[in-house]
Amino acid sequence: MAEKKEIEEGAEFRPKFNEDGLLPAIAQDAETNEILMVAYMNLRSLEMTLSCGLATYYSRSRKKVWQKGEQSGHTQKVEQVLVDCDQDCLLVKVKVDAGQCHVGYNSCFYREIQKDGSLKLVAEKVYDPGKTYKK
Amino acid sequence: MAEKKEIEEGAEFRPKFNEDGLLPAIAQDAETNEILMVAYMNLRSLEMTLSCGLATYYSRSRKKVWQKGEQSGHTQKVEQVLVDCDQDCLLVKVKVDAGQCHVGYNSCFYREIQKDGSLKLVAEKVYDPGKTYKK
Repeated sequence: MAEKKEIEEGAEFRPKFNEDGLLPAIAQDAETNEILMVAYMNLRSLEMTLSCGLATYYSRSRKKVWQKGEQSGHTQKVEQVLVDCDQDCLLVKVKVDAGQCHVGYNSCFYREIQKDGSLKLVAEKVYDPGKTYKK
Repeated sequence: MAEKKEIEEGAEFRPKFNEDGLLPAIAQDAETNEILMVAYMNLRSLEMTLSCGLATYYSRSRKKVWQKGEQSGHTQKVEQVLVDCDQDCLLVKVKVDAGQCHVGYNSCFYREIQKDGSLKLVAEKVYDPGKTYKK
């Protein structure tokens, strides 16, 4: 039992990166518990997140490490980084002071999927991305 | 601008499944906003989730659709399914009445990653998985 407990709950961090060396990472507002976004981290970006205290991800499209907010200024100050039971997903609790979705919403999850498959807008924009992101 | 708005916020659901036909899906407690778990959905399990009102996922290890709680009884009653800006991740807000992690915790995110890379237990078990899951 002791051995089983160690396997399940052990203090050793053994992240199970996917074939691209990445883990999905959920950013959650530490104050409101709202889910802000989901991005990916490689080992380097996770290490930077832990050491610098600002959430840093790996962009699959640009194939590079990026600190959230490096362009927009809408950074994420890290309060806590958690890992799930399977060690294949991260949860990053962050403090923010500006909208986190590049489309202009506080959260990337601003649309609800209806039973008929259509999408319903369930949030309001909190900033103008046209003024925040350079073309 | 109207066209851009439509692309960004349009009512059409165009999920971007990964190469395995899956999307990560975050289960969030609709009452407390706690993140309970992250699993994957294929189109079939998403359709079942929307139509049946019980969160249904696709098991990558067992290669089959599974309804959360089919073995443990710890089901997830779906309140809302949201999709993110890129349409490559789902957020499922659920009502639950039992621990959701198969290890015995309320949430799968029961361990915090410390700066030195070790893990710290930050939750307490809410049920005995040995009694809930058959060997």
